[in-house]
Amino acid sequence: MTTQETKPQRGRPRTGPDPVRFKEILDAAARRFLANGYDATSIQDIADEVGILKGSLYYYVKTKEDFLFEIIKRAYDDAMLLVEPVVNSDQGALAKLNEYVDKHVRFSVENLTSVTIQVREFRSLSPERKQLITAGGDSYINALRKILLDGQNEGSIDPDLDVRIASLGILGLLNSVTTWYNPEGRLSTKRLSDHFAGLVLASVVSDATVAEYGSLSAVRASAK
Amino acid sequence: MTTQETKPQRGRPRTGPDPVRFKEILDAAARRFLANGYDATSIQDIADEVGILKGSLYYYVKTKEDFLFEIIKRAYDDAMLLVEPVVNSDQGALAKLNEYVDKHVRFSVENLTSVTIQVREFRSLSPERKQLITAGGDSYINALRKILLDGQNEGSIDPDLDVRIASLGILGLLNSVTTWYNPEGRLSTKRLSDHFAGLVLASVVSDATVAEYGSLSAVRASAK
Repeated sequence: MTTQETKPQRGRPRTGPDPVRFKEILDAAARRFLANGYDATSIQDIADEVGILKGSLYYYVKTKEDFLFEIIKRAYDDAMLLVEPVVNSDQGALAKLNEYVDKHVRFSVENLTSVTIQVREFRSLSPERKQLITAGGDSYINALRKILLDGQNEGSIDPDLDVRIASLGILGLLNSVTTWYNPEGRLSTKRLSDHFAGLVLASVVSDATVAEYGSLSAVRASAK
Repeated sequence: MTTQETKPQRGRPRTGPDPVRFKEILDAAARRFLANGYDATSIQDIADEVGILKGSLYYYVKTKEDFLFEIIKRAYDDAMLLVEPVVNSDQGALAKLNEYVDKHVRFSVENLTSVTIQVREFRSLSPERKQLITAGGDSYINALRKILLDGQNEGSIDPDLDVRIASLGILGLLNSVTTWYNPEGRLSTKRLSDHFAGLVLASVVSDATVAEYGSLSAVRASAK
C-alpha cells in the first residue's frame, strides 16, 4: 500500500474511468447512432464525434456493442427507477396508470436521444445483453402489466382486457414519441403527457369506473 | 417500328425488367434489410441473398436506396389502397375507425417484413424520396385524421380530442406489431385486430356515443 501511494502505477489510474467523461462519450456515441444508425457507425466515428483518438476509447469500452449496451442499459435503468415507485404506490390503478404514462412521456422527451436509441436499436444487442438489461423478464413492460392486473382485480380496468396485448399496444403508443416528437416544436410535454394519459385511461377503463366518474370524458380529464 | 420488330435491340429487352423477378429481388432485399439493418446491408449482400451476380441487380435498380424506396413505396401504396375506401365509405366514424384498424393490422401481419422495413427505415430515405411516398403530405395518417375529424363532426368522437396527437399515438400503437408480433405464435390476427380496435375505439369515443351503446364495453365489443 505505502509503496503504491508513494509510487503511483503507470498506465490506468487506479480510480478507473472517469464517470463524467464516460457519460460524455456515451452521449456522443448516442448522437452518432441516432444520426447514422448503429450498424453504420464505427468506433472511429465515435472518436471523431468526441474529438479524441480512437485508441483512447478502448479505455472505456472494448467493442461498439459496449457503447450501445451502456446507452440502453442506463436509459432502461433510469426509466425503471421512475416507474417502479408508481407500481408500488398506495393509489388506485388508474392513478398509477396516469403516473406511469406521465413519467414515461417526460423521461422520453427529456432523454429523447438515448430513448430513441433504446427503441430503435434494442434488437441490435446480443441475446445475452438483452437479458442483462431486462433481467430475464422485461421489468419495464411488466410494471405496466402489473398496474393493469391490479386494476382488473380492484374493478377499475375492463375485466375483458387482454393485458398482454394491451400493454404492448400502450407501450407502442407511448414510444411513438421517439418517431415524431420535435423538442423544438410547439407541443409541450405536459399537453402531450395529459393527452396520451387520457387516451390510455379511456382505452382500458371499466364500465363501473366510468359510471363512478360520471362520464368517459371525466376519466380522460382526470389525466390532467 | 418495323425495323425494330424484325431486328430486336441487343442488351435490355424492350419489355423492361420482369416485374415478378423484380418482386422476388425486392423480397430478398427486404429480408436482408430486416436481418442486418439497412445501413449495414450492401448491394453485394442482396445479390448473395437472391443468388445472382451483383452486376445483374443494376438492371433493376441503380442504388441501394432504390431497393429501400421500392419496398417502402409498394407497402405504403398497397396499404393506402386498403384504407382509402374505408375513409370514403358510407358509414359512421367508429365503424370506419374499426375497419381502418382491422385493415392496418391484417396488412401489417400479412406483410410483416416490408411493413417492418417501412416503420424502421422510412427515416433512411432521402427527403425527396420521403416526399414521393407520402405525396407531399402523409395520406396514410391523414386518412386516420379524417376519420377522427368526421367523428368529431358527427358527435361520435370526443370533441376535446387533439386529432394530431391522437392519430400519431394510435399509429404508434398499431405499428407496435412490427416490434413484437410473432407470426408463428398463438395470437391470431383476428384476436389482435379485435383487441386493438377495441382499445382504439374506447380511447377516442364520445360520451354521447357511449350512452348510445349503453356502456364503454359495448363500444369495445362492437369492434368484434
